Amino acid sequence: MGNFKVNQKDIFFILKEQLNYGALCDLDRYKDLNEKTLDMLVNEAISFAKGVVDPLQEVGEESGIKFENGKVSMPSEFKKAFKQCGENGWIGVDLDEEYGGQAFPSLMTIVKNDLLYGACQGFNSAPGLTRGAAHLIESFAIKDLQERFVPKMLDGTWSGTMCLTESDAGSNLADIVTTACREEDHFKIKGTKIFISWGDHDMTDNIIHLVLARIEGAPKGVKGISLFIVPKNRLTANGNIEGPNDVLCGSTEEKLGIHASPTCTLNFGTRDDCVGYLCGEENKGLAHMFQMMNAARINTGVAALGTASSAYQNAVSYTKERLQGRDIARRKEGSVPIIDHPDVRRMLLWMKAVVDGMRSMVYSGMYWADLSKSLPEGEEREHYLNLTEFMTPIIKSYCSDMGFRVCETAMQCYGGYGYCREYPQEQYLRDIKILSLYEGTNGIQSMDLMGRKMSMKGGAPFYAFKKEIQTFCENHKEHSGLGDKVLALSGVMSKVCEGAEELRKIMASDPLQWASYTFPALMALSETIIVWRLLDMAIIAYENSLKNGRKYDFYRGKVMQATYFTDITLPNILAAIQSCLRPGREIVDIPDNAF
Amino acid sequence: MGNFKVNQKDIFFILKEQLNYGALCDLDRYKDLNEKTLDMLVNEAISFAKGVVDPLQEVGEESGIKFENGKVSMPSEFKKAFKQCGENGWIGVDLDEEYGGQAFPSLMTIVKNDLLYGACQGFNSAPGLTRGAAHLIESFAIKDLQERFVPKMLDGTWSGTMCLTESDAGSNLADIVTTACREEDHFKIKGTKIFISWGDHDMTDNIIHLVLARIEGAPKGVKGISLFIVPKNRLTANGNIEGPNDVLCGSTEEKLGIHASPTCTLNFGTRDDCVGYLCGEENKGLAHMFQMMNAARINTGVAALGTASSAYQNAVSYTKERLQGRDIARRKEGSVPIIDHPDVRRMLLWMKAVVDGMRSMVYSGMYWADLSKSLPEGEEREHYLNLTEFMTPIIKSYCSDMGFRVCETAMQCYGGYGYCREYPQEQYLRDIKILSLYEGTNGIQSMDLMGRKMSMKGGAPFYAFKKEIQTFCENHKEHSGLGDKVLALSGVMSKVCEGAEELRKIMASDPLQWASYTFPALMALSETIIVWRLLDMAIIAYENSLKNGRKYDFYRGKVMQATYFTDITLPNILAAIQSCLRPGREIVDIPDNAF
Repeated sequence: MGNFKVNQKDIFFILKEQLNYGALCDLDRYKDLNEKTLDMLVNEAISFAKGVVDPLQEVGEESGIKFENGKVSMPSEFKKAFKQCGENGWIGVDLDEEYGGQAFPSLMTIVKNDLLYGACQGFNSAPGLTRGAAHLIESFAIKDLQERFVPKMLDGTWSGTMCLTESDAGSNLADIVTTACREEDHFKIKGTKIFISWGDHDMTDNIIHLVLARIEGAPKGVKGISLFIVPKNRLTANGNIEGPNDVLCGSTEEKLGIHASPTCTLNFGTRDDCVGYLCGEENKGLAHMFQMMNAARINTGVAALGTASSAYQNAVSYTKERLQGRDIARRKEGSVPIIDHPDVRRMLLWMKAVVDGMRSMVYSGMYWADLSKSLPEGEEREHYLNLTEFMTPIIKSYCSDMGFRVCETAMQCYGGYGYCREYPQEQYLRDIKILSLYEGTNGIQSMDLMGRKMSMKGGAPFYAFKKEIQTFCENHKEHSGLGDKVLALSGVMSKVCEGAEELRKIMASDPLQWASYTFPALMALSETIIVWRLLDMAIIAYENSLKNGRKYDFYRGKVMQATYFTDITLPNILAAIQSCLRPGREIVDIPDNAF
Repeated sequence: MGNFKVNQKDIFFILKEQLNYGALCDLDRYKDLNEKTLDMLVNEAISFAKGVVDPLQEVGEESGIKFENGKVSMPSEFKKAFKQCGENGWIGVDLDEEYGGQAFPSLMTIVKNDLLYGACQGFNSAPGLTRGAAHLIESFAIKDLQERFVPKMLDGTWSGTMCLTESDAGSNLADIVTTACREEDHFKIKGTKIFISWGDHDMTDNIIHLVLARIEGAPKGVKGISLFIVPKNRLTANGNIEGPNDVLCGSTEEKLGIHASPTCTLNFGTRDDCVGYLCGEENKGLAHMFQMMNAARINTGVAALGTASSAYQNAVSYTKERLQGRDIARRKEGSVPIIDHPDVRRMLLWMKAVVDGMRSMVYSGMYWADLSKSLPEGEEREHYLNLTEFMTPIIKSYCSDMGFRVCETAMQCYGGYGYCREYPQEQYLRDIKILSLYEGTNGIQSMDLMGRKMSMKGGAPFYAFKKEIQTFCENHKEHSGLGDKVLALSGVMSKVCEGAEELRKIMASDPLQWASYTFPALMALSETIIVWRLLDMAIIAYENSLKNGRKYDFYRGKVMQATYFTDITLPNILAAIQSCLRPGREIVDIPDNAF
């Protein structure tokens, strides 16, 4: 009786018709897989999302977490679901088989997450963080630590966290003050971390924290940060639980949403007895952590996609059922379903385009990420690596901001009922809001994109992005049905790229002016990608869209969402990128006391 | 220890320098007032908002309403505050003195509401509804009913509601089925109303419901609806409470926000013993109710303005205090307040412009409404009446949609803290969301604007709006500092007006296509007004903005918000209005099963 709804045709259209994801099985790394096994995984993820995760959405909201006597407890349904997540292999979908991973392409993790976040955003961050923490250990820790921790994390016996933020070091990790003091084969950790998702809970009998801290005498700033494995409970030599480590949950945050996802303050070493193990190289902690942070950023976008998709799908169902008002063109007698009202259809069509466009962008991004990891070394692999670098802050920011707008619009379709807890929309709206704020605010992402990603390797990530879209436009500008839209995209794309390069030039000479416009520039670049992805799908769907019969309506939808969204969006993209280059300096110059 | 913050200089700048509101006292109706008494009222409203209403915001959220044994109870602080509201004259600020009103211009009610909604949106709908209900009785009921009900509503002894919606008659009031059966000097009312704000509570010992119902045998549709006064408790001949009427609260809604504002289902006449009194003419109920609905629509916009203003003011304070990160241009050493980061300033400047622009739009709208009521009959009065008609759906929709976006942006300024209940932003975001949904969804407002308001009296409301902006542009296009922005507005304004007229033509020939674009057209018209209002303030502030010294920063802010917002907004307005005329029919034509 949950609210999770998914249109699997949309998902398979992107995976098969747009991306031809079966081709990943031609890569050496995935040679034991074939398209059917990938299809099966998608179908199983849909079943798991519906059967196991969907009911948690309401349970988590009703019961939420409890924090008593320094311990967080979860509804029993959550414990059960997490265990099943591990047992069914959902935690380590794309990790190596050595420690229990399923060795699927990373794309499959993202498809699974799209579905599981869509069913219960609050819950699905737990397996996501556990995967990320396990993968850090698997990638950087010594063999002994790998063996002790990773298998039990991947099978759901234990869970994992990432502990970065401190009260004065959030966006700026250079200011971290948590310390690590060497002692025999381990370190003693001391410090307080805040905003730790799943920092404490009783779903598993151990929690493995991946903690950033400074070894005594380390250099100042980001170059003196190391990464540590800090279990909630200590282990004996043979890997069993020995007893509590000195890690205490000091409090949990009361939040707007994701009420079933505990957000904790963790105190390490209040009794000077918190044991941690170095993970990877000394003073390379931040570089190591970037592996997990990049995955977390993409997953933040995926969470937004999944939640927005559920909001949209529910709005579609509701507007088909809810009767209210008369048909404005008198095509029917009496009260009509509100989907007949054009302004409701306008909202639905816009949401459809945004959700489908985001999904295509995210899946494509992960497909490229897989190529960047698994192609043989060379130019092509480098191209996809560059694309992945470019896409990460875009996926994080665009999906979280526009996903929120989708949820707002889905609520609007319900009228006053949308505001009531009886319907699912108000929870989607609350849950999704965290995503623009955590894992680096969207403003910070925009500086990463327009700064680092535009400049690194001589701008290679930017040129990889540019090449992809330009090639698409070149190939399809004479398409019989959609050529004019492709040409329009091509024209706007040129302006966007010129604008982005202009802005990059300003970065060095006038960083304040540059940083005033990184965010609108990120949004302009993102929307260009969405238009591209929608037109790409439309071209694939085009022939079928011309055929008669209800079964081809699906393809007509792909074409119509693309032409509509392209027309209403391209002029805004152009306006936005031009605004980014305006000489006005109001943002920089306005006196603080004029606010 | 509340969160309410207001910049009274902003308020007085609009009232005095932009509107010269003292001139209202030259009108015959307000000849006993002068500018000083108006100023005093503003200052008293600020004190009342800070001292009495502000603390309710947290109390209401923490305790909320309680619904037990068919009765709603409120926190005691709310009872006290409502009583004070009546005693201090805040309920009937603009109503006639005959029954206890204060006989101020309507503008003053709106200024008061801006402040009180800004302090606690949930609470301030109670005095607002009470005023509206009392005004309906005062305007349309027979003398005896006026005398019995109005004075006790205006002094806060009793409160009032508006009862329109039924489960199958929300947006479409033609479908109302509640009945009224004549019996001696009164009627017996029977039916169920839903979503009734303040439908039950214990702040006052009586609640006066203004109920739409059908007298037996009345015509179908909107022409058969009458308006009734239905007290929760019956009165004796001398106006004291006799005992309960047959009005029962069946349930209250659990909502996303405004937790201290009860939203009730009311059952009238379950024992066939619900007494009601006809208010105004039989079958004219909807026309009468429009008085209250129009006021409620404007107040919905005002609530959005007040809440958005508080969200913005809190973001300003927070970003000045919160230290994080380094200065990107190295102007300072060490951690800096986040207001130093350009992307944070971008958000603040945008919010400042939107809030100040909305406030100017709303106050101007009410200033015109006062002129439309109090000027001698004639062309000028008619002009302002037309303007008021045009502004009502714009104020309701634009402020509620953009106010929500301001709250979203204000939260973004806080990073992860914005998501926590410890800070005020998450409540503002939840509370403000109702405003796009109730009093007619924003989609419905857009059909009112682009349909009825564009067509009535040969388009007079639209021409009144056009004339105001064109006159402004004509007068200022050669301004030494801002002439180029005024010219840019003028150019866009022409296109917007052409577009709006084109769209109107489509209404008759192709209503489905027309209704697909009424909402973006409303937003384009609204933003044009905001740019105009901001440029008008900038021109007034211009001379002072050129002077040296900190005390002139306020004026620089007015100029900078206008130039920034104008530049980034005009191209979007142009793009939006052009989109409204595109021939593509995707919204209408997309098959339902393609969603």
